[in-house]
Amino acid sequence: MTDSKQTLPQAVRDLVIANRILGHEGVVDAFGHVSMRHPERPDRYLLSRSRSPGVVTEDDILQFDLDSNPVDADGPLSYAERFIHGCVYKARPDVNSVCHSHAHALVPFTVTGTPMRPLWAMSAAIGDAVPIWDIRDDFPDRDTLLVVDDATGASLARTLGHGSACMMRGHGATIATASLKATVLVSVGLMYNADMLFRAELLTLARGGGQVTYLSEREIRSTTEVLFGPRGIDRAWEYWSLRAGFRPEPEPRRAVGFLARE
Amino acid sequence: MTDSKQTLPQAVRDLVIANRILGHEGVVDAFGHVSMRHPERPDRYLLSRSRSPGVVTEDDILQFDLDSNPVDADGPLSYAERFIHGCVYKARPDVNSVCHSHAHALVPFTVTGTPMRPLWAMSAAIGDAVPIWDIRDDFPDRDTLLVVDDATGASLARTLGHGSACMMRGHGATIATASLKATVLVSVGLMYNADMLFRAELLTLARGGGQVTYLSEREIRSTTEVLFGPRGIDRAWEYWSLRAGFRPEPEPRRAVGFLARE
Amino acid sequence: MTDSKQTLPQAVRDLVIANRILGHEGVVDAFGHVSMRHPERPDRYLLSRSRSPGVVTEDDILQFDLDSNPVDADGPLSYAERFIHGCVYKARPDVNSVCHSHAHALVPFTVTGTPMRPLWAMSAAIGDAVPIWDIRDDFPDRDTLLVVDDATGASLARTLGHGSACMMRGHGATIATASLKATVLVSVGLMYNADMLFRAELLTLARGGGQVTYLSEREIRSTTEVLFGPRGIDRAWEYWSLRAGFRPEPEPRRAVGFLARE
Amino acid sequence: MTDSKQTLPQAVRDLVIANRILGHEGVVDAFGHVSMRHPERPDRYLLSRSRSPGVVTEDDILQFDLDSNPVDADGPLSYAERFIHGCVYKARPDVNSVCHSHAHALVPFTVTGTPMRPLWAMSAAIGDAVPIWDIRDDFPDRDTLLVVDDATGASLARTLGHGSACMMRGHGATIATASLKATVLVSVGLMYNADMLFRAELLTLARGGGQVTYLSEREIRSTTEVLFGPRGIDRAWEYWSLRAGFRPEPEPRRAVGFLARE
Repeated sequence: MTDSKQTLPQAVRDLVIANRILGHEGVVDAFGHVSMRHPERPDRYLLSRSRSPGVVTEDDILQFDLDSNPVDADGPLSYAERFIHGCVYKARPDVNSVCHSHAHALVPFTVTGTPMRPLWAMSAAIGDAVPIWDIRDDFPDRDTLLVVDDATGASLARTLGHGSACMMRGHGATIATASLKATVLVSVGLMYNADMLFRAELLTLARGGGQVTYLSEREIRSTTEVLFGPRGIDRAWEYWSLRAGFRPEPEPRRAVGFLARE
Repeated sequence: MTDSKQTLPQAVRDLVIANRILGHEGVVDAFGHVSMRHPERPDRYLLSRSRSPGVVTEDDILQFDLDSNPVDADGPLSYAERFIHGCVYKARPDVNSVCHSHAHALVPFTVTGTPMRPLWAMSAAIGDAVPIWDIRDDFPDRDTLLVVDDATGASLARTLGHGSACMMRGHGATIATASLKATVLVSVGLMYNADMLFRAELLTLARGGGQVTYLSEREIRSTTEVLFGPRGIDRAWEYWSLRAGFRPEPEPRRAVGFLARE
Repeated sequence: MTDSKQTLPQAVRDLVIANRILGHEGVVDAFGHVSMRHPERPDRYLLSRSRSPGVVTEDDILQFDLDSNPVDADGPLSYAERFIHGCVYKARPDVNSVCHSHAHALVPFTVTGTPMRPLWAMSAAIGDAVPIWDIRDDFPDRDTLLVVDDATGASLARTLGHGSACMMRGHGATIATASLKATVLVSVGLMYNADMLFRAELLTLARGGGQVTYLSEREIRSTTEVLFGPRGIDRAWEYWSLRAGFRPEPEPRRAVGFLARE
Repeated sequence: MTDSKQTLPQAVRDLVIANRILGHEGVVDAFGHVSMRHPERPDRYLLSRSRSPGVVTEDDILQFDLDSNPVDADGPLSYAERFIHGCVYKARPDVNSVCHSHAHALVPFTVTGTPMRPLWAMSAAIGDAVPIWDIRDDFPDRDTLLVVDDATGASLARTLGHGSACMMRGHGATIATASLKATVLVSVGLMYNADMLFRAELLTLARGGGQVTYLSEREIRSTTEVLFGPRGIDRAWEYWSLRAGFRPEPEPRRAVGFLARE
């Protein structure tokens, strides 16, 4: 599940695809970003310059140390909120990819205290209960909503804890997993879970009350295993990258004349 | 309404179109699948290898026996949940096509116990009341949500009963009818019925209560007949396949010079 | 506002554009249709053969008499519900174009008895209160939801009355105005009004009750006049036809070198 | 933040891009418009002729004086509601760009009296509380909803006050800021805030009451500063213009061979 065997050019290419997928699927809009740990140097991470993910190219990918300083000090403008990435990589050696999601469906949950829990098989990997980080809690005197330094980034990383996702009040979410493809999968799953949970909360109200049936802890664990296997991540990655306009490497053509294999 | 007069290549081509239609209309996403019974061998069914339906090609279509073993044991990876298909074909000789829907609009109904009944003419063929299958009922000690063997598949087929659709808790639905095109029509109709019923339930709440007017049993029966006739299935199939990017076989050109026929 | 000065080929071309617009904007899906009165023979109307509006071509346009018999008895299959059109043209000499809308946003209103009234400037032309026709009222012993003969068509036309729109329970709506372009405008306006009114009803509920502010009768009258003028219909028609893929006739190029005119 | 250093052709080109962006993102539909103050003559503004913003070209841009008379009296038909623009420019010397939004998500708020306040970082610049202008308040005897003269325009400008946005009952909104790009950013942010606030109001209801957490005044102020800086406006403008089909001016190619900069 880690990308640690990749070369740097392979990693950069996959990171560009991830940017385009997240833009195309609506996980990010003009804002939001996705990074991965450097495949050869775990003390660095790869992240685009300040640009909307949906239009990022290989030329835009920069390197940062874990304090979020650009390795090339004379490089182009970088994201103000890159500290989200650096702080999570520092706190979580198991994490190799981080997404800062701007999915619109998430925000209403963060400003109403509605618990975010998985109710759908494909969303199992968001974890049993996704915490909400409110910058006001640790920084009551700050003016900003944004994670623009190590202090705010470390606070966010503490709320994330050992989990794979953390909601951010009035802002979005941060997703962190062991691989780039898993981070994309969890980011998309969290977005759809929010859409479905919104509807489920309202149907519950319309039916006179009761409780949404979330996935059980055992269902979460076992379904996450399937999602992170070849029938999950790889299938979704192929599909989403095709939708976003990428063409796969040419496969060796199977020497089969029949339409359906027997 | 059966496809039993088709040759295998025709069947495979239609199955690919069905895959693309369901992907394009949002009935399936990265996950979900659609199958048809082999047109010449009712003890087999045709289903894609493990691939997102929206990008399936003719090369991807595999054959399975009704125990869901691939006929070509050395073939590519197949869907873990292919047992949905095999078990329904075994239990239902009248069924010639099965869809495992991942339509997002369905899921909120499955986790709130909201009854799914048709309220719209185009959704009549979903049947008077669509049952909900919860894997926990028959398998309280299972960890998984997924239908990955004959036991879980047979349980699902029992809940489906004689109907054309069955909701799956936290997961989606299974649709089963006598033909590929009817399965596509019912799958799309179920998805839109869910969207409309969500809104109708909330409007009822906002208006201070009362009851959604569903289709009557007689309306369901008579409208389903029209939907499964040439003005229903064939028109919709042509439209959806054009939307999904397919071009029809060239028709014999009508020798008419006038714009409007008199 | 009438199209009565058009030649038949011009009328057919505009009717094809209207079909494509309504398909592209979501007023119709695989089902639904739009017609116009024959520009030279008011005892006939023009309507596509049984085909989804989004893919209709000039070759598909047929002629019918007001009893909805095809003028060419040997022509292709026609819509089962063409009687909607014939009956409205018979009852309403002022009407020159009819749309049978399948817009999904409409249906929840028809099955919950929620009043449909305009709340948005662009929807003014739907009229002060849109009636709901329920086929069960006049035909308690009918099995069908569909308007498949003169009796059901006449019943629908009676509920429509002098108005420009009529909701149909579990089905959609019928829109009827003096011109093709006005019918398209009202059909789109009705669809968006339904979306907005759904949200407004729920916001009212969330705010603890109260009443949605609809347009007043005077606002309806005066705004409809603007909508049916050159800054309404013509602008919208150009925009929607460009979105649906049509290119306008080449205009005489204005001989202006400057970017902005002074 | 002002565009006052632009030449007229540059201004016209940017205004066309803004028209296309707003059309593509859904801030305007067939109706609605966007203007900017003339870069060299503050007593004039630039606005398209009466045409849907999504299809406006450079040839369509006209000049008006602040009484909303076209400078070229023999020019093509102009928007009936151009007085929105003229009246805001007269009342607000600090304003250099005005958008009349038709975003559908806004309208339900205007007819239910639901307060519009920012809850999302990207929407901070709409201001602490967006007022609602109801034409009936100042003009109880008017028939129209539309701003078609200086009297109604001045009334709207009074309700806008010193703010950057003003809702319009049954109609949409007016957005006014110091620059074209800021007006686009606030217009998009207001639209998404409405979508999110609709959901947040309903989640609050479903959770049994309570209060949506809006941005604080300090968060609004500090986040607006970031949004109006190079990591906000410029990034969003590049992204939205690419989405709308525009290609940027060719940049000087960076002489870098490596995929990731070190």
